[in-house]
Amino acid sequence: MNLSTELNERRMYVDTKLDEYLPKECEYPEIIFKSMRYSVFAGGKRIRPIMLLAVNRMFGGSDDIAAPYACALEMIHTYSLIHDDLPAIDNDNFRRGRLTNHKAFGEDIAILAGDALLTHAFEVMSEAVCKSQDIKGARAMNAIAHGAGVNGMVVGQVVDVISDGKKLNKETLDFIHLNKTGALIQGAFKAGALLAGATDASVELLDEAAKKIGIAFQIQDDILDVTSTQEELGKPIFSDEKNEKTTYVTLYGIEKSTEFVKQLSYEAMSILQSFGTRCNFLEEMTRYLIDRRF
Amino acid sequence: MNLSTELNERRMYVDTKLDEYLPKECEYPEIIFKSMRYSVFAGGKRIRPIMLLAVNRMFGGSDDIAAPYACALEMIHTYSLIHDDLPAIDNDNFRRGRLTNHKAFGEDIAILAGDALLTHAFEVMSEAVCKSQDIKGARAMNAIAHGAGVNGMVVGQVVDVISDGKKLNKETLDFIHLNKTGALIQGAFKAGALLAGATDASVELLDEAAKKIGIAFQIQDDILDVTSTQEELGKPIFSDEKNEKTTYVTLYGIEKSTEFVKQLSYEAMSILQSFGTRCNFLEEMTRYLIDRRF
Repeated sequence: MNLSTELNERRMYVDTKLDEYLPKECEYPEIIFKSMRYSVFAGGKRIRPIMLLAVNRMFGGSDDIAAPYACALEMIHTYSLIHDDLPAIDNDNFRRGRLTNHKAFGEDIAILAGDALLTHAFEVMSEAVCKSQDIKGARAMNAIAHGAGVNGMVVGQVVDVISDGKKLNKETLDFIHLNKTGALIQGAFKAGALLAGATDASVELLDEAAKKIGIAFQIQDDILDVTSTQEELGKPIFSDEKNEKTTYVTLYGIEKSTEFVKQLSYEAMSILQSFGTRCNFLEEMTRYLIDRRF
Repeated sequence: MNLSTELNERRMYVDTKLDEYLPKECEYPEIIFKSMRYSVFAGGKRIRPIMLLAVNRMFGGSDDIAAPYACALEMIHTYSLIHDDLPAIDNDNFRRGRLTNHKAFGEDIAILAGDALLTHAFEVMSEAVCKSQDIKGARAMNAIAHGAGVNGMVVGQVVDVISDGKKLNKETLDFIHLNKTGALIQGAFKAGALLAGATDASVELLDEAAKKIGIAFQIQDDILDVTSTQEELGKPIFSDEKNEKTTYVTLYGIEKSTEFVKQLSYEAMSILQSFGTRCNFLEEMTRYLIDRRF
């Protein structure tokens, strides 16, 4: 298996399905559908949907049954980026080298495009549950809602926002990482497993692995901000320092932060390996994401 | 049956359940839960949840099984008000005599409180589906998502926003009314019927009635803006004229608009009456809402 070919193939599958589940740009009122698609098709790596599909395959699940949930996850991820970039929150003008949604379509449409993507995610998922007549879909939907809501992503973002400009301790920093980044990855793992009818014990183990992966991923982000080059990263480096942001690096330094990533990654991989060879792709993929240089 | 006692009792039931389903204010991070509750408990009449519960009762459904869906509907309605009031959209400082959410908590928290309420609505509903192990819940959820999303409320709001300051024709005005107000009422009627296992034919009839009620309700709003007093209405009158907004009144005058309301109301009531006496409460309630003087 060549990982990058495999990732690319799966990304294309997700893109095709996203195109299917999103309203066409020519529908009335065009501007909202253009705005939704502008951000969904902005070059995302589709990490969360690919994770969901990979976990689902581990337990014998089919891609086509899981696709609505995988795409819904990406819609939710995209809505969160659009709202995060708004002037009242992070006030970012660019994302991945393109204008942010509100810079391209106006603040009003950006707010509504975020709302539309979030709602559409649940419309797509609930429709899939109705069609399949299978309650497992409702469990997957609940895992995703849980990861995105007041027990997950939203409160991570809230604490990030209210901590702006303040020195943080490890506890608060972990709360932000766990919720803002980790919770939706946990949602991806759990939803994939639940859809395929995995046992409660398996779901719990994967949830634990996803949590560790989420934090490792975020600490690695903090490290790259000071060790990478702007060319490699595709965005300005030392941005955390400029924004006086508390990160693992400012709290513990690069060396100890790298140790944390290694330890978390080791623990996560041990869990994944307990599932045997059917976990190979997921293991290789997450190892690649955590060890990435940019 | 005394309608106002009955409405009051049902409103209190919804309030109790909302309190149960929303995270407590003392949870961390407090500000988001305070902000969510501030707008949910701002004196709303709970029309949509009461409609859902009433339709559900018509077909023998239980309030306690339908409650999560009824409350979710109110959370979605509340999120839409919070986001509508934002500076980038309607820029309103007051709602029902209190500061709007962003004036009380800041624009960042208001955006996130709206996001949190919308996501929580789906978390509460999907949890209810899992607990009941009944696919009818997924159908109700889908009807609500459909009413709130890109086939309903969101696109109504989009067309309202992009029409700002423009003269509209009847077609566009109807599109806004049908989607911005009507679609969520249709969601309430359909979800209530679906939950109780009503036949497809009944669901379709009720959907049609809800559509007419939604438009009648909105035209009545336009009429009251020019015929009521500020004291009766609890908000400034002639606001549409001041904002140069196209309404049924500006297009057709008061007399013809009143005729439209009467005709739509008559048609809606005829549909409801076809269900016999079990529809009495819903009929009386919607008649009261359409005929209201404020």
